[in-house]
Amino acid sequence: MKYMFYNDYSEGAHPRILEALMKTNLVQENGYGEDEYSMEAAKLIRSAIAKPGAAVHLVSGGTQANLLVLGALLKPYQSVIATTSAHIAVHEAGAIEATGHKINTVESKDGKITPQQIREVVAAHADEHMVQPRVVFISQSTEVGTIYSKKELTDISAVCKELNLLLYVDGARLASALTSVRSDIDIVELAGLVDVFYIGGTKNGALLGEAIIIVNPDLQSDFRYHLKQHGALLSKGRTIGVQFGELFRDGLYLELGRHANIMAQKLADGLRASGFAFLTDPATNQIFPILPNGLIERLKADYGFHLWQKIDDSQTAIRLVTSWATGEEAVAGLLEEMRRIQK
Amino acid sequence: MKYMFYNDYSEGAHPRILEALMKTNLVQENGYGEDEYSMEAAKLIRSAIAKPGAAVHLVSGGTQANLLVLGALLKPYQSVIATTSAHIAVHEAGAIEATGHKINTVESKDGKITPQQIREVVAAHADEHMVQPRVVFISQSTEVGTIYSKKELTDISAVCKELNLLLYVDGARLASALTSVRSDIDIVELAGLVDVFYIGGTKNGALLGEAIIIVNPDLQSDFRYHLKQHGALLSKGRTIGVQFGELFRDGLYLELGRHANIMAQKLADGLRASGFAFLTDPATNQIFPILPNGLIERLKADYGFHLWQKIDDSQTAIRLVTSWATGEEAVAGLLEEMRRIQK
Amino acid sequence: MKYMFYNDYSEGAHPRILEALMKTNLVQENGYGEDEYSMEAAKLIRSAIAKPGAAVHLVSGGTQANLLVLGALLKPYQSVIATTSAHIAVHEAGAIEATGHKINTVESKDGKITPQQIREVVAAHADEHMVQPRVVFISQSTEVGTIYSKKELTDISAVCKELNLLLYVDGARLASALTSVRSDIDIVELAGLVDVFYIGGTKNGALLGEAIIIVNPDLQSDFRYHLKQHGALLSKGRTIGVQFGELFRDGLYLELGRHANIMAQKLADGLRASGFAFLTDPATNQIFPILPNGLIERLKADYGFHLWQKIDDSQTAIRLVTSWATGEEAVAGLLEEMRRIQK
Amino acid sequence: MKYMFYNDYSEGAHPRILEALMKTNLVQENGYGEDEYSMEAAKLIRSAIAKPGAAVHLVSGGTQANLLVLGALLKPYQSVIATTSAHIAVHEAGAIEATGHKINTVESKDGKITPQQIREVVAAHADEHMVQPRVVFISQSTEVGTIYSKKELTDISAVCKELNLLLYVDGARLASALTSVRSDIDIVELAGLVDVFYIGGTKNGALLGEAIIIVNPDLQSDFRYHLKQHGALLSKGRTIGVQFGELFRDGLYLELGRHANIMAQKLADGLRASGFAFLTDPATNQIFPILPNGLIERLKADYGFHLWQKIDDSQTAIRLVTSWATGEEAVAGLLEEMRRIQK
Repeated sequence: MKYMFYNDYSEGAHPRILEALMKTNLVQENGYGEDEYSMEAAKLIRSAIAKPGAAVHLVSGGTQANLLVLGALLKPYQSVIATTSAHIAVHEAGAIEATGHKINTVESKDGKITPQQIREVVAAHADEHMVQPRVVFISQSTEVGTIYSKKELTDISAVCKELNLLLYVDGARLASALTSVRSDIDIVELAGLVDVFYIGGTKNGALLGEAIIIVNPDLQSDFRYHLKQHGALLSKGRTIGVQFGELFRDGLYLELGRHANIMAQKLADGLRASGFAFLTDPATNQIFPILPNGLIERLKADYGFHLWQKIDDSQTAIRLVTSWATGEEAVAGLLEEMRRIQK
Repeated sequence: MKYMFYNDYSEGAHPRILEALMKTNLVQENGYGEDEYSMEAAKLIRSAIAKPGAAVHLVSGGTQANLLVLGALLKPYQSVIATTSAHIAVHEAGAIEATGHKINTVESKDGKITPQQIREVVAAHADEHMVQPRVVFISQSTEVGTIYSKKELTDISAVCKELNLLLYVDGARLASALTSVRSDIDIVELAGLVDVFYIGGTKNGALLGEAIIIVNPDLQSDFRYHLKQHGALLSKGRTIGVQFGELFRDGLYLELGRHANIMAQKLADGLRASGFAFLTDPATNQIFPILPNGLIERLKADYGFHLWQKIDDSQTAIRLVTSWATGEEAVAGLLEEMRRIQK
Repeated sequence: MKYMFYNDYSEGAHPRILEALMKTNLVQENGYGEDEYSMEAAKLIRSAIAKPGAAVHLVSGGTQANLLVLGALLKPYQSVIATTSAHIAVHEAGAIEATGHKINTVESKDGKITPQQIREVVAAHADEHMVQPRVVFISQSTEVGTIYSKKELTDISAVCKELNLLLYVDGARLASALTSVRSDIDIVELAGLVDVFYIGGTKNGALLGEAIIIVNPDLQSDFRYHLKQHGALLSKGRTIGVQFGELFRDGLYLELGRHANIMAQKLADGLRASGFAFLTDPATNQIFPILPNGLIERLKADYGFHLWQKIDDSQTAIRLVTSWATGEEAVAGLLEEMRRIQK
Repeated sequence: MKYMFYNDYSEGAHPRILEALMKTNLVQENGYGEDEYSMEAAKLIRSAIAKPGAAVHLVSGGTQANLLVLGALLKPYQSVIATTSAHIAVHEAGAIEATGHKINTVESKDGKITPQQIREVVAAHADEHMVQPRVVFISQSTEVGTIYSKKELTDISAVCKELNLLLYVDGARLASALTSVRSDIDIVELAGLVDVFYIGGTKNGALLGEAIIIVNPDLQSDFRYHLKQHGALLSKGRTIGVQFGELFRDGLYLELGRHANIMAQKLADGLRASGFAFLTDPATNQIFPILPNGLIERLKADYGFHLWQKIDDSQTAIRLVTSWATGEEAVAGLLEEMRRIQK
């Protein structure tokens, strides 16, 4: 295997992050996220998003972040609205339902939800025989690599306010979304439109860690109880604190996202140049080229990737994922191999 | 502050662990605990406990381990028996109840439960108007630093089998328990007496991580679903795998526990030599000397520790915790300072 | 208002049921469903379904029955498959999710699920990142008044066995389904195809009460714990026992269902004679005629019914529900009124 | 068996209640508690307690009432304080824990909690490593037949307000408590001291039914969602509405409680006259005489009662429960039988 494009968590951490862990290793610190490093990371994040009053909580993974946030935001009879392909709806082993809550799903081809769909779900839930929708869940970028534009997010945010819904953004791949050449929204603007979001570290250069940001002050109280109750309050919280400090000290976070995008765009350009189409328009570090099955079979010998969706009897959309760790040579190698096979 | 004896997670990781993370950092691996390092760690652990059929799952923390195991072992109407001072009963923010289960508590002065107490709880729960006790939860070492002897564990294990109960051991501080000079049981013997236990990494030199060991084959199936559903399946599972590999490759795990114990015994010896008594007999890396309040006040200027329990108007039991990272000079320093004050 | 066709629970109980309550009222009995009347009712039901080993539990309502059964049958990470219109999916305020379980929904026009849909859901859930489907939930009759044929139920039962799924039937309106002129399956055959089902009393002449029947012996143990834990174990269990005894002593149960169907068929015949179509083919005590909006408006003055679905700008499907208590005169009255308006 | 003093739910309903069900039986009504009878019952109850703004919800049983109220009042990380003998702590099969909440228990000999105990629990729960106590649960009367005085309730209410706790009273046997000759508090005063309470119907003459009263307006919104989600919203809500209407129309509720108390006092007087002591001072319809084991054995031939607590090798406390249905002749019969045996 020459290189695996399976996902953006195949390698460990960006070297600067390991160095930061080394450097701080023997300093004695408080436990449970009350160490200097976690507090500094929170401060850097609040500054980066221009929300001095935001609450920042560092947790170990994305599913954990989602179940914590939704478990905290929803009353027992309330539900969350999401697309049928949303991570919470499919790939979290029922974690949200395990906290007691229904997910009201809506169909979406591009992984994005529309204000109209939100309205329809709310309109369809009229009384106590049904759940009460309370949160809209979206991902930026989505499960199929697409991103919401500033207008789309603004419209969703507006319909949420109008309908007394909260807006929560899963930012597992937020770095890639923010640094996409297709993006017209920055993190400050995004933070201004949402109630809660999380900034993904695991898929952008950290060993592990996601930063939950509670922007809406009404939702901040007692969140640490939720962390503790779900086993998310790490005694060595510093382990994540040090990493987010490094990611947000001088722009490393966006730099890594940008690198992943550039690698993905090079792949996309090469594939497009060879005449291939895409399932969704390549925008972030996940791209979905549609390739002939024969080509796929031969590429698989040297490169790792997931089959995503059967297109017809002769073609399949595959998923290629790049990361902070993907080198130019891996990208060039795959494209070269593809051209070699095609000849 | 010269040194903090607050707990055994004040520093980062043992240097060898950080080195292992560095060395393996850029190797591409599978996600979600299916990487080579996690698999090797599991193999080493199975070998160390002489249970080739044991299932090993690496998770991020102790509360998480407890809620995962108990949530998996108990049917909705079943309960777990523990002491009133048990971590799950007091210090996990209701994590076990949040998975739907009652904890049947029994009083204990030394943090240990007896077979007779187990019998009484079971006898008191006769029908479907009450919960059905199904698991006995114990910690080795306990919250007050004591350890179960081989005979005590054997007796508890026997009563569990007799009463159709499962035995689960919280081993957050198992390394210290196993290497205590008071211990007469090794990890192979312990693994032979229990259904499930976890081996604590966070409090014994890892950045984070606990290894859940499901010894009983009847309890092993589908445990990864529980991990995923509770947000405990880390995409970079390697982060914990590498650490446990290092801890179990050549005995580092026990070595670190032994070091912590030796430091605690030096503290205990010095305090005893100065005439002080202890709340519980010092056996592991947590000791509870009873000191005059005036001495405590003055010691606090340079040394960190928790007040544990008021003894009378003039004396208080404090908790001193040592770890793999506690140096001889910190121990000597505290004892010297104590003697200086006493003069 | 001359008559309300809103539902089949507008009146109290069939007079024979009230008489039975009167007659037994002052006999002292055991509590919590262990009274003579509940035991006799269970015996009569076991005999009626020809399953001497079935476990019978009497509870107060349909949503309660569903959450009890699914909560008992599913492990924390398992899910139930149902149609998008299923009662559990829409009209139980998230009761199933509140017990921790996801509902995997499939689209259906006639309220029925197909073996192929079941296969697809199972095929799409391959590993621990997703829930594990374990139960198929169907209603007989369905939310839109349709019924499964013997062949359909046999095929669903077979696919469940093949795929290691359990089959559960919500029989809130089972009496009407079994006595439908379209039905080709009796209760003995139905009981032979399912793992668990419930026989609805509330909608067929009881003051309240549903009988949960656990046919599969592997699923019977400890169910009373679930009852108690969910507040479903009534101290005067006799109140439901007496009613089910009366319903099953000499065929009253089916007689009441048959009456409701005959009333519905008379309505359907009259509407059809007037040239109206139906949303689904009238088969049970719920029919869904498609009427001009003008007619609906005028009918509403004297008759109660729910608007069900907009068909186009000028027509709407309404729901008419009959019951054991619906008299010939109410049916004749509505049809007459309709003809009067149409003139 | 001449008479069973096992409990206060051995018979059916008071005849007036059955008559009311008969009389209203064929009137068509709305479902789900929105019928005229339920609304009238709510109005009568609001009037009886002099709380025109109270929310009244009729449910089918006491465990159901408790899990509904506590599930609605508590955030996921919050707990309820109760005595170790409280119904929710022992006899509800973990129903409260099944809604996710810990019960913080305190020891009590007479079944009552003290303000000081409440303070101690709150003081011991300082941070997010522990649950957050939020509700105090008491029963009036208690599990051992005792009652809180007006002063005791006033003091508990005051400490709750001071510590930001909610006060909830389980009134399964409220009728007996209110009409006790030892009682110095009426229902209006009680309603003024609590946030939520329930008025028990099942144990005071109804077929089934408890009325949850949410006095505190801040806790009233959306409670029907909780009802529906827990299967507690009966489609024929009228069944309970009619009964509570009858109980509260002209004082039947208190009359039935008073009768039960008088019967219990006659038993107590007779037993006391024969020289027997009591486990707790007889005050309500549950009394706990301490009898010689030989006498108990012989009494058991003709009278039913539960053994409650072993006193010593020769004596046991038994529980005798009277109800609205207990006749003078049953009481006289037991006393006579006792005297006959003693001779």
